[in-house]
Amino acid sequence: MRHIISIILSNEAGALNRVAGLFSNRGYNIETLNVAPTADQRVSRLTLVTKGSDGVIGQICSQLLKLIDVVDLVDLTDGPHFERELLLLKLRVAPEGRAALEELVSHRGGRVLDERAETFTMEYSASGADVDRFIEVASRQGQVLTLARSGPVAASVGEPRTSWAPYGLDSQ
Amino acid sequence: MRHIISIILSNEAGALNRVAGLFSNRGYNIETLNVAPTADQRVSRLTLVTKGSDGVIGQICSQLLKLIDVVDLVDLTDGPHFERELLLLKLRVAPEGRAALEELVSHRGGRVLDERAETFTMEYSASGADVDRFIEVASRQGQVLTLARSGPVAASVGEPRTSWAPYGLDSQ
Repeated sequence: MRHIISIILSNEAGALNRVAGLFSNRGYNIETLNVAPTADQRVSRLTLVTKGSDGVIGQICSQLLKLIDVVDLVDLTDGPHFERELLLLKLRVAPEGRAALEELVSHRGGRVLDERAETFTMEYSASGADVDRFIEVASRQGQVLTLARSGPVAASVGEPRTSWAPYGLDSQ
Repeated sequence: MRHIISIILSNEAGALNRVAGLFSNRGYNIETLNVAPTADQRVSRLTLVTKGSDGVIGQICSQLLKLIDVVDLVDLTDGPHFERELLLLKLRVAPEGRAALEELVSHRGGRVLDERAETFTMEYSASGADVDRFIEVASRQGQVLTLARSGPVAASVGEPRTSWAPYGLDSQ
């Protein structure tokens, strides 16, 4: 029921709206989404996670592919793929909680970005499930002031699954 | 001219559309955007980067705050803040290019996710400028097959700049 979809999108004002609109028109919520430039200035890559029946998601994907803005699309859920997510977490922490946080960050391969009298800011990248666990453990040490997640970025394992390369780049 | 805006958004179908629509209605492009759940199930945090005159961006922010979906908003550009971005990069690499990539990833504190006969997949998190440089150096070793960036996630330095906490969380 969970789908992670990777889209190559033209850099046109309103393109994001048209993509998101196909989900909201059906009352479907987009759980996470990220979009950023690629090596080709004409297109961005958008990765989104949504939940729904395979049939309806398949219909939405077909409609997405009909949008002029959508250069290519693949539902990565169909095959083996990587998903990685970035977390930025700032806590209000008492002095006695700092050592545990430093150990957690070091042990999990994160980074401490800033330590101040009252706040502790860290970065961590991993699978979504590992990010969930990191938040759970870290937040035992203090009050969450900022929790910013990127949503997963994703790619198929091994060879790209599509042969799209109109801009000199494959689609995933 | 570049603005990075952090928004606490209700988890309602169409909320993302309404936010993105205020930019596209004025012909403003959203360069990067990411949105994902917070510790509170009712809201997500959305971080976007756009370019435009301070006046127009200020007007768009005022309009965003009038949307029912927008619980809180801060233009982080106004003060010291962290920005971190996640990159997932897959290259087609000849055997002789692998050592240089492994060294690059190790030196910059990235991670190798997968090495196969023809493809090399890695992860790297840093500031946007450092991600740009990483891509430039890595792509000398092979053909880019997948380039997926999260866009920056961001937080103010030190104490949160707003006192918003209707859901038990501050806004940034």
